[in-house]
Amino acid sequence: MEKIVSFCKRKGFIFQSSSIYGGIGGFYDYGPLGSQMKKNIKDNWWNFMVNTRANVVGLDSAIIVNPKVWEASGHLENFTDPLTECRKCHKRFRADHLIEGCGLELSQIKCPECNGDLMDVRNFNLMLKTFIGPVEDSSSIAYLRPETAQAIFINFKNVLDTQRLKIPFGIAQIGKAFRNEITPGNFVFRTREFEQMEMEFFIKPGEQEKWFKYWLDERIRWYTDILGIKKENLRIKETPKEDLAHYAIACADIEYNFPSMGWSEIEGVASRGDYDLSQHEKYSGEDLKYFDEAKGEKYIPYVIEPSCGVDRTMLALICDAYEELEKGRSGDSNATEIVLKLNSNISPIKIAVLPLVKNKEEITSKAKQVFNLLSPCFVSEYDETGTIGKRYRRQDEIGTPFCVTIDFDTLNDNAVTVRNRDTMGQERILIKDLMEYFNKNV
Amino acid sequence: MEKIVSFCKRKGFIFQSSSIYGGIGGFYDYGPLGSQMKKNIKDNWWNFMVNTRANVVGLDSAIIVNPKVWEASGHLENFTDPLTECRKCHKRFRADHLIEGCGLELSQIKCPECNGDLMDVRNFNLMLKTFIGPVEDSSSIAYLRPETAQAIFINFKNVLDTQRLKIPFGIAQIGKAFRNEITPGNFVFRTREFEQMEMEFFIKPGEQEKWFKYWLDERIRWYTDILGIKKENLRIKETPKEDLAHYAIACADIEYNFPSMGWSEIEGVASRGDYDLSQHEKYSGEDLKYFDEAKGEKYIPYVIEPSCGVDRTMLALICDAYEELEKGRSGDSNATEIVLKLNSNISPIKIAVLPLVKNKEEITSKAKQVFNLLSPCFVSEYDETGTIGKRYRRQDEIGTPFCVTIDFDTLNDNAVTVRNRDTMGQERILIKDLMEYFNKNV
Repeated sequence: MEKIVSFCKRKGFIFQSSSIYGGIGGFYDYGPLGSQMKKNIKDNWWNFMVNTRANVVGLDSAIIVNPKVWEASGHLENFTDPLTECRKCHKRFRADHLIEGCGLELSQIKCPECNGDLMDVRNFNLMLKTFIGPVEDSSSIAYLRPETAQAIFINFKNVLDTQRLKIPFGIAQIGKAFRNEITPGNFVFRTREFEQMEMEFFIKPGEQEKWFKYWLDERIRWYTDILGIKKENLRIKETPKEDLAHYAIACADIEYNFPSMGWSEIEGVASRGDYDLSQHEKYSGEDLKYFDEAKGEKYIPYVIEPSCGVDRTMLALICDAYEELEKGRSGDSNATEIVLKLNSNISPIKIAVLPLVKNKEEITSKAKQVFNLLSPCFVSEYDETGTIGKRYRRQDEIGTPFCVTIDFDTLNDNAVTVRNRDTMGQERILIKDLMEYFNKNV
Repeated sequence: MEKIVSFCKRKGFIFQSSSIYGGIGGFYDYGPLGSQMKKNIKDNWWNFMVNTRANVVGLDSAIIVNPKVWEASGHLENFTDPLTECRKCHKRFRADHLIEGCGLELSQIKCPECNGDLMDVRNFNLMLKTFIGPVEDSSSIAYLRPETAQAIFINFKNVLDTQRLKIPFGIAQIGKAFRNEITPGNFVFRTREFEQMEMEFFIKPGEQEKWFKYWLDERIRWYTDILGIKKENLRIKETPKEDLAHYAIACADIEYNFPSMGWSEIEGVASRGDYDLSQHEKYSGEDLKYFDEAKGEKYIPYVIEPSCGVDRTMLALICDAYEELEKGRSGDSNATEIVLKLNSNISPIKIAVLPLVKNKEEITSKAKQVFNLLSPCFVSEYDETGTIGKRYRRQDEIGTPFCVTIDFDTLNDNAVTVRNRDTMGQERILIKDLMEYFNKNV
């Protein structure tokens, strides 16, 4: 995992946030390659979950909502972690993590840092607090959302009233969420600011088993068929009935087998019954029932919720695609070479446009023409520094599936060499056929 | 403007946030159509500013950064509005807005609500505050960013170290920002949570005039040629020298002529010199200079900053495209009809797929096939309720440029009727040619 962290920093995927000021714990910035890759993940999710389905619509709600939302949802009372602190060094820990780590009871556990005594456990609410308006008092408190899902429930009626949707239908949203984690860690796996992709799929009560299975299958299909994650690195872990929240009917985690950390959750799929809408109906006094015109029935729908972490998915994708070759890609090098075998729809750069030499104006201007042709449709990079071999290696490292080289022959035949990252095979393609070629292959 | 607000709510573009709980001042949620339209605006900006330029890269940084950033940038001390409060009704106002409104000196102004006396003015900092970690004290204070730009400056070195960029180059970012406005208002024009699209373009000192003009022209080109906003509704307002911030070299607002509000800023383009990087160099102790290898020079670059508000751009687009026709689109109706003449790359739905009837399985299944063909490439809606005429009107109202109707003839000729929103003309197109048709026309 350390290799991955350093790779992400070195190539401009992920930086520690505020690094010139010594950082800030639990926050990360996505660099030039990371921001594009993150966008690709989100666009692929949106396309898979929203745009290709006639019965799923999108939403983009505010991060700060009326604080009554968190009273109704139970977050104000229950969204807590058990916090303990060392009496000697005053370092703070999650009590549940300490217990999991050693199997002892808390009263027997000493501070892992200095062996000091630990204080009694208190429940620490993970919601970040702020104040809205000019006065800081209890009436102006608001919270940064700890999940995007509740904003979907509170907009259920708005969506129902304005769209012509019939159950079953879904409302999907991508956005930032915040949790004041006691011990953020494992790179972008557990951070205080993160991004979620969530959908609430509203169904007729009684059909929850069928739809739970359907969405679990669909989500696995997304990871494997759309993102190209290796099947053997994914597994489903169903939550035992006795561990479920009181309102939950079923819950399953989709886990990825991360280096160092092992199997860890990247998505949760939950069958939540009518708990959330019922709570909001009770606290808001608004009628949140659905009226089935055909059957003349009125009911609060049940809900299936696939909830995915963007940052965790990105980390899984990088781990899954990262390959080190000790003797280089051709097996005859003295240096270790890296290739990032990302699916082409996830790669931050789809095509690298490489003029063979940088000091021959005819060649560089031709290369810029090719860049201008391709870049509106495929994220492209123009690179003229270093030998072609070195430039291929650099693109392999950041996962670019295709390199296009403009050479002296190009000036005569108007064709370029297209080099494939995975096969390392090269093809000669006419410039006028490039768009069609990449439309087919990217 | 009231018409626009009600239109946005009625059709599912923009809802007041937390509406079932009585709302929360200065926050809005984007519904099914609004979230897709907002995404289209952001994607078009990203494509225009980042992907089609070899010398601009992206960034996606955390909303919460180390608080020293705001000390260095001057926000902690100076990012304030003058706040006054009525002694009688305790309503709060921005003193500068009151003065602008009536032209009097503040000592002469009474409360606009109850005519009571106003208190002395105090400077109110607009940054929203929170606490990171388990203890709420001065050492744990952090702020929600009031702009995305500073995160670009603090990542300048990270980007320089990891990418092969040469000046001039840009770093661009899209993301949420928060300002604790004393009086949010004018719908999504002035909100407490909003989204920005900003770029810092780093240049050689001395070249600021050329690049300031270049980016001002480019940004106008984006609004007119890419978004399709009417030229007569846009103007540039240069800030007079005497009103510039002490470090600013030049600044110009791009204004849109909104209904009710009149000319108001949707984007600012600023020539900021080396102020920001110099401040961060001073406060962080890191070397933030650029080394020009070819010339052997080392300097802190100057910067040109085009800074655009997503929400304001969306409001301008809707105002610009909104047309009401008293006698309907054909001039012979008794009801007022609305058509939203959005550019097709901004329209939330590109294609509506309409089976002529909903009770004939051959037709609806054919229509679903067409939906499945088009929806992975073009955001499409499947609609089978109401007469074709009504469905055309509905799509006109939400700005859908094309409707595709599957009728009885389709079952024989495998062709569909494509209807154009703006010309209302209809063409018969073979299903197998649809992709090519829309690739050309959307």
